Amino acid sequence: MKNLKLALVGATGLVGQTVLKVLEEYNLPIYKYVFFASNRSKGKKITFLNKEYIVNELTISSFDEEFDFAIFCAGGEVSRKFAPIAAQKGCIVIDNSSYFRMENQVPLVVPEVNPEEIQNNKGIIANPNCSTIQAVCALKPLDDKYNITRIVYSTYQAVSGAGYKGVLDLKNGVLNFNNNLFDDLEQNYELQKFPLPIFSNCLPHIDIFLENGYTKEEEKMINETRKILKKPNLKITATTVRVPVFNSHSESINVEFEKDFDLDDLKNTLKNAPNIVLKDDITNGIYPTTLDSNR
Amino acid sequence: MKNLKLALVGATGLVGQTVLKVLEEYNLPIYKYVFFASNRSKGKKITFLNKEYIVNELTISSFDEEFDFAIFCAGGEVSRKFAPIAAQKGCIVIDNSSYFRMENQVPLVVPEVNPEEIQNNKGIIANPNCSTIQAVCALKPLDDKYNITRIVYSTYQAVSGAGYKGVLDLKNGVLNFNNNLFDDLEQNYELQKFPLPIFSNCLPHIDIFLENGYTKEEEKMINETRKILKKPNLKITATTVRVPVFNSHSESINVEFEKDFDLDDLKNTLKNAPNIVLKDDITNGIYPTTLDSNR
Repeated sequence: MKNLKLALVGATGLVGQTVLKVLEEYNLPIYKYVFFASNRSKGKKITFLNKEYIVNELTISSFDEEFDFAIFCAGGEVSRKFAPIAAQKGCIVIDNSSYFRMENQVPLVVPEVNPEEIQNNKGIIANPNCSTIQAVCALKPLDDKYNITRIVYSTYQAVSGAGYKGVLDLKNGVLNFNNNLFDDLEQNYELQKFPLPIFSNCLPHIDIFLENGYTKEEEKMINETRKILKKPNLKITATTVRVPVFNSHSESINVEFEKDFDLDDLKNTLKNAPNIVLKDDITNGIYPTTLDSNR
Repeated sequence: MKNLKLALVGATGLVGQTVLKVLEEYNLPIYKYVFFASNRSKGKKITFLNKEYIVNELTISSFDEEFDFAIFCAGGEVSRKFAPIAAQKGCIVIDNSSYFRMENQVPLVVPEVNPEEIQNNKGIIANPNCSTIQAVCALKPLDDKYNITRIVYSTYQAVSGAGYKGVLDLKNGVLNFNNNLFDDLEQNYELQKFPLPIFSNCLPHIDIFLENGYTKEEEKMINETRKILKKPNLKITATTVRVPVFNSHSESINVEFEKDFDLDDLKNTLKNAPNIVLKDDITNGIYPTTLDSNR
């Protein structure tokens, strides 16, 4: 019996469109979907589960209509303003923005890692940064078994993480490729998102720079990992880098454990963890790649 | 007075062509250049310092003609076979291949780091792997001052490191871009170098995989760093990744020191090190990028 009503805020954005695809894949007990976006996208049409929907403008009265759940993926500012309103009206907000993640009363949940935290929600449940989610899925089972004492993150993040405009910057770089490979890789097109070309480049600059020299993305990975693993003093550092790939983030993660480990045991632990696919058969050319994880 | 005679082995390859560019920039006291390559490139013409040269085939009698120096950049197999012959004839070989690097009697030299080792040569001087060279230039002054106890390398390596065919694989990926960004990033062209497409991909696979699970590239970084820093037991690990950029390798290097350090002191130490450019003015958007290092 389909008995839930869902709002999706940010339905026309890159994340929203991906959420729609995921919702189409899952047969959730939802009888009504309502899609919200900014004034700019008001009236746009969305085809979802073979039905056409009109996008509504998000306003302070949008949640006067009662919803069971709302998925927010329209950025921190929209969440800051509208998530508390929705929560106050009895709707449970699942928030993709960074705005509430580090608040004590907001559970920061990765279903594979700490689903038990969901019950502690007071109307808002946050999900972590994209790079953090995939990392903790692999780290949690290892922490349970070997007790992680230090993490060094280096990321290889796709332009999709920066939304449509980030994707456009790489696409324009590709389409404007002028065949001058080395000496004069001029990129003559207007950048929409990044401060520098991302085509044929690596940018150690995701989100803004903070006074301590880290970027906010790096700080997110550090703080969110600590919160999700419930290890507030865990030694972590992160270098987050945007690379010229369209989709899927990759990471090089160096982990130190308190306990000794057997490498085969460790691999088996990963292999048996929820939603982890271990690609580790190098003699047959099987190892993780960005493109492969994108399929 | 120009009194040296130089042979360049592998003159038509990607590295050889780059060596030629560098030689054009420096006004070295060389009165005669002779260029060698494989049988396949025999007779090709090279324009160098406004003069046309014919490429000679490298044979076992090539070094019957006396040379002061020979730069070898034609891969390990060519070095294995011909470098000892050249050395025996009194020519000092500067070898870019990995073949002799870890041999005890062969100095592994980065001019900015351990030039004093040159005098210990017995006819062959090796230079390290591309990723190692740039790393140790930054690490050596820090090791001198703070005593490095552990290194975690994660690399972002350009296709140029894989030679012309590697560059071609990325170029073909760019030129065949079919605009299907996410769901169906099909890459329908024949790969020349890499086992998988490199366009919009990250490949944690450089050189061959070894039985211990590392790639040979990773092992090179580990062993060569230890040899150059003269710390045979230094704790080092490396994850080397090919990324879709044409030229210039980037690296995320996590370093642990024995001694306490002040971050500003550390930055000044780097800034004053030979051939290091410190890009660290984030409030003005100045930080290292791959493209920038390529200029």
